[in-house]
Amino acid sequence: MSNFTDVQYILNGFLFLFSGVLVMWMAAGFAMLEAGLVRSKNASTILVKNVLIFSIASIMFYLIGYNLMYGDGNAVMGAGLALSGIGEVAKVGDMELLAMVSDGTPTHPVMTDFFFQVVFVATAASVVSGTIAERMKLWPFLIFTVVLTAIIYPIQGHWSWGGSELGGLMAGFSDFAGSTIVHSVGGWAALAGAILVGARKGKYGKDGKVKPIPGSNLPIATLGMFILWMGWFGFNGGSQLAMGTMTDIDAIALVMADTNMAAATGAVTAAIFTKILYKKVDLTMVLNGALGGLVAVTAGPDLGMFVSFIDGLVAGILVVLAVPFFDKIKIDDPVGALSVHLVNGIWGTLAVGIFGSATLMAQIKGIVIVGIFTFVASFIVWYILKLTIGLRVSEEVEYEGEDLEETGLEAYPEFGKGSQKL
Amino acid sequence: MSNFTDVQYILNGFLFLFSGVLVMWMAAGFAMLEAGLVRSKNASTILVKNVLIFSIASIMFYLIGYNLMYGDGNAVMGAGLALSGIGEVAKVGDMELLAMVSDGTPTHPVMTDFFFQVVFVATAASVVSGTIAERMKLWPFLIFTVVLTAIIYPIQGHWSWGGSELGGLMAGFSDFAGSTIVHSVGGWAALAGAILVGARKGKYGKDGKVKPIPGSNLPIATLGMFILWMGWFGFNGGSQLAMGTMTDIDAIALVMADTNMAAATGAVTAAIFTKILYKKVDLTMVLNGALGGLVAVTAGPDLGMFVSFIDGLVAGILVVLAVPFFDKIKIDDPVGALSVHLVNGIWGTLAVGIFGSATLMAQIKGIVIVGIFTFVASFIVWYILKLTIGLRVSEEVEYEGEDLEETGLEAYPEFGKGSQKL
Amino acid sequence: MSNFTDVQYILNGFLFLFSGVLVMWMAAGFAMLEAGLVRSKNASTILVKNVLIFSIASIMFYLIGYNLMYGDGNAVMGAGLALSGIGEVAKVGDMELLAMVSDGTPTHPVMTDFFFQVVFVATAASVVSGTIAERMKLWPFLIFTVVLTAIIYPIQGHWSWGGSELGGLMAGFSDFAGSTIVHSVGGWAALAGAILVGARKGKYGKDGKVKPIPGSNLPIATLGMFILWMGWFGFNGGSQLAMGTMTDIDAIALVMADTNMAAATGAVTAAIFTKILYKKVDLTMVLNGALGGLVAVTAGPDLGMFVSFIDGLVAGILVVLAVPFFDKIKIDDPVGALSVHLVNGIWGTLAVGIFGSATLMAQIKGIVIVGIFTFVASFIVWYILKLTIGLRVSEEVEYEGEDLEETGLEAYPEFGKGSQKL
Repeated sequence: MSNFTDVQYILNGFLFLFSGVLVMWMAAGFAMLEAGLVRSKNASTILVKNVLIFSIASIMFYLIGYNLMYGDGNAVMGAGLALSGIGEVAKVGDMELLAMVSDGTPTHPVMTDFFFQVVFVATAASVVSGTIAERMKLWPFLIFTVVLTAIIYPIQGHWSWGGSELGGLMAGFSDFAGSTIVHSVGGWAALAGAILVGARKGKYGKDGKVKPIPGSNLPIATLGMFILWMGWFGFNGGSQLAMGTMTDIDAIALVMADTNMAAATGAVTAAIFTKILYKKVDLTMVLNGALGGLVAVTAGPDLGMFVSFIDGLVAGILVVLAVPFFDKIKIDDPVGALSVHLVNGIWGTLAVGIFGSATLMAQIKGIVIVGIFTFVASFIVWYILKLTIGLRVSEEVEYEGEDLEETGLEAYPEFGKGSQKL
Repeated sequence: MSNFTDVQYILNGFLFLFSGVLVMWMAAGFAMLEAGLVRSKNASTILVKNVLIFSIASIMFYLIGYNLMYGDGNAVMGAGLALSGIGEVAKVGDMELLAMVSDGTPTHPVMTDFFFQVVFVATAASVVSGTIAERMKLWPFLIFTVVLTAIIYPIQGHWSWGGSELGGLMAGFSDFAGSTIVHSVGGWAALAGAILVGARKGKYGKDGKVKPIPGSNLPIATLGMFILWMGWFGFNGGSQLAMGTMTDIDAIALVMADTNMAAATGAVTAAIFTKILYKKVDLTMVLNGALGGLVAVTAGPDLGMFVSFIDGLVAGILVVLAVPFFDKIKIDDPVGALSVHLVNGIWGTLAVGIFGSATLMAQIKGIVIVGIFTFVASFIVWYILKLTIGLRVSEEVEYEGEDLEETGLEAYPEFGKGSQKL
Repeated sequence: MSNFTDVQYILNGFLFLFSGVLVMWMAAGFAMLEAGLVRSKNASTILVKNVLIFSIASIMFYLIGYNLMYGDGNAVMGAGLALSGIGEVAKVGDMELLAMVSDGTPTHPVMTDFFFQVVFVATAASVVSGTIAERMKLWPFLIFTVVLTAIIYPIQGHWSWGGSELGGLMAGFSDFAGSTIVHSVGGWAALAGAILVGARKGKYGKDGKVKPIPGSNLPIATLGMFILWMGWFGFNGGSQLAMGTMTDIDAIALVMADTNMAAATGAVTAAIFTKILYKKVDLTMVLNGALGGLVAVTAGPDLGMFVSFIDGLVAGILVVLAVPFFDKIKIDDPVGALSVHLVNGIWGTLAVGIFGSATLMAQIKGIVIVGIFTFVASFIVWYILKLTIGLRVSEEVEYEGEDLEETGLEAYPEFGKGSQKL
């Protein structure tokens, strides 16, 4: 068939665009999840952060990140600015294409690849905003986001998806859609920030008691979870990276069904587990159980329904245990992002070593290398910000709410404030 | 063209995945619609229910339901667990596919079909949660959801989409995307539950007066309606079941345009009709008018714009009449799900007998058979649950709100509670 | 390849359906944005308006508008009702198609084109509802929507996308996806309405002071912005109008990446600019900055990442300046729709004259012709409505809120009303 490669080129490209739109939508999911889980006095600030995270990631990854990740260069990082040197101008008949080319055949448009990759970066950065919510100043957070999306994320991505294997150290590491490369990277960056910014006032009493600080709007938090679940079909499905063969569409279908299974199992497990532990079904744990399942399955969504079931089962339990664990060590994480993205990013990546084709050792090495790099690099950036412009809002601002200081706008100016000033 | 079947296989499969993502999104639509239409004191419980409905449906339909519906077996039900025996391992060149095969040609991946079907099941179950909201306990509802999605829905589905025709009794019955098979099934199951659980305290006064209990958050209810409208393009469009020929894409386009027309007409009709009856345009009726139009067109979204216009017109009127009718017979339905899904599921299925190729008698037979089976089976399950663990929360929990009992979390802990404890 | 035209027909058609679903979703975006930016006492009315805008547009554009825009006729307007005469019944083998045909080859189904076009109309009408919010009566607004979607929008659309060039006056005018044809048309119609209905009570004090009236629910306003951003990938991407060649998919990818870049740049620019001007990052300005970037890039989303960056940069500044400008001339626009859609619709169209292949003169002529026609036609319709049924609610209704008068339903009946009655 003379035009089959044309059609494959179109279908491969369209998979990236379709999936990219879904992953972009995840930015709204994070925004709603986080706005719903913080107190209303800090809600407009977290909304600004979420809009700007996605915006900054879009700009910085274009200008710097994409080439640092995928450009030629050396084992540590790629080179070039603003897509330079990526792709080839391929001539096909009278068409001139800017294409990725494999074995002399154009496989898909460069811009479809960029579009899909750029929305991934924002996901990693979105993890951070939840963990440091309700006490970190807006501008240091935005500056950190610039560095994370332009430099830290792309450099570690160069070692795996960028193909450099860090000179062989990361050889054999397998992470289909980014349990480690995206989610735990966000988690490590968030952890470093949470340590340096400290816990919210009053969260940990002197008597060792942990004070619950309930989210202000659970319907929109639930909406956020559903948005993320939906977007994840693009996140994982698009990571098949091609839709031009029958095998590809078979694989994409399995990936999507697996993704759904892990989320479902995570939610049900967290529901049952919280019912057993606390006599109640904790809605926020159910949401985080589903998200934990999604993070866990992301490293190996091609491994079948049984593995996905296990991914979600373990994730649902891990989330419920990890939230009090982080409170125990006084790492304050208002939305549970570390329990979801860091803990289950690690679990899902290990699961590929247990059930998949990668060795457990290769997986552990990858997790550790990416983790150390991201944590240390993030810690340094956060630390410089702390020493210079400072990370934390004043006590008064924290008490009155970040919104009046940062945005000057209340999220819900007309609604009552029963327990707002906690 | 040697590779045309490859492309058709990919396009057929992708239609299911694209549509399946949209139908999954409807779960968020039901969640927002119901959370917005209940009182805030019961909102986090209805959110938990909605997340778990979709999760349970995903798991149970995989383990049991899919084969009960589509597996070989007998006229009453299919057989086999967890997709066993569904599809064939087809060898195409060096590719090995798990495919649906027709006349020796692989038509689409098995998992694309599963992905599309599994999200449908959740829709049927989502209808139920709205009707029994604000007074049914969480766990009996979840147990019912297990039975509905694993057994009741798949068995009746076996008679129509599963192809058995119930030994000829359902021959000639036509229901394109499930006005009866999905929506009225949810409606009958909900009706049985509503009868057994009874009305909310205070809804029907001793003087025969019906007390209006307004929804707590109409913006998210409206969002829910829009989500459902959007998702319905996948629900109906994907039910063309193929996108590999020019005729298919023509048909899908007509189905989507028809779907949109019925929703639009339903909304406008309900707006005008409530203005005439009540001097106000009742927003919740407009939302339910659009949804009623969508349910009605679902049985025959391939019948053209004129029929869709009639579908929506009648649906908009039916919804406005059905809501007070159910109140008159003291069936309490906080979100109007019976008026939308049961009444218009029946109307839309009849419309195919009037305007479409099916006979009216075949449609009536199908409606009655599916209705009796679903209502009786559901009634038995609800009744057993009532006798054993009980269906209804205590009077005190109903007064204080289900949320403190079931989830331990208020949906909006900081907002005022002017009229919350109704 | 004998079947390549089949596949191209399918892919072209599917692009319209995929994009059309995304553009339909923008209706939800406008609804959430506007409901979040008005006071809660007017929220259920704005929700009703938004649901009915989309519904009315769907019906009227089918019955009248589509043929007025795309039908044969004369230089001023097309002719025919309800798709009559649009497309051809093409016979391909044993298939009978209702198709658009080019050079004897069917290119895509007529209904895919209709589906894509119909959702565009609603966008133009959605712009209006925001500007006249909180004081215009429901029914005159709905009647205006009928005229706008059936007649005004289609007539001016006939001159550009309809191909008539208004007898040569609009020759050379270039507007890829409708910065002028959709967004500024909505803006001009809104401007005429805002002038005739007047400002909200108390907005402009006698001392010349402008009173800020904050939106009641910023999380759902932010959600609305994200929905619009997502939907815009369909709005602009689908406007490539074909996906059947490698060049097309290249172009669609560039359009989507450009669209994203403009939105991101608009948001970041507005954030920095408001921080500089007001010491705070104004969330609503950031939302409108992103939307302004989207409107601006819409006329030329095929011009590359650099132009898109400039589009967004200027848009982010324009929005921040235009909002106080309209207040200065006492045009009251509760959601900033004029600043977003009218100002940036003009800017984006001019940008194509500066950076694109069109001449600046052709662009200016198009902007002016479409602007004068739309403004004058809208003004006449609004004026007739003002003289007959009246445009404005009574002072008492404005004080108490439109909701009790128009819908009889409060949007949030249980939440506190601290500053609701402003």
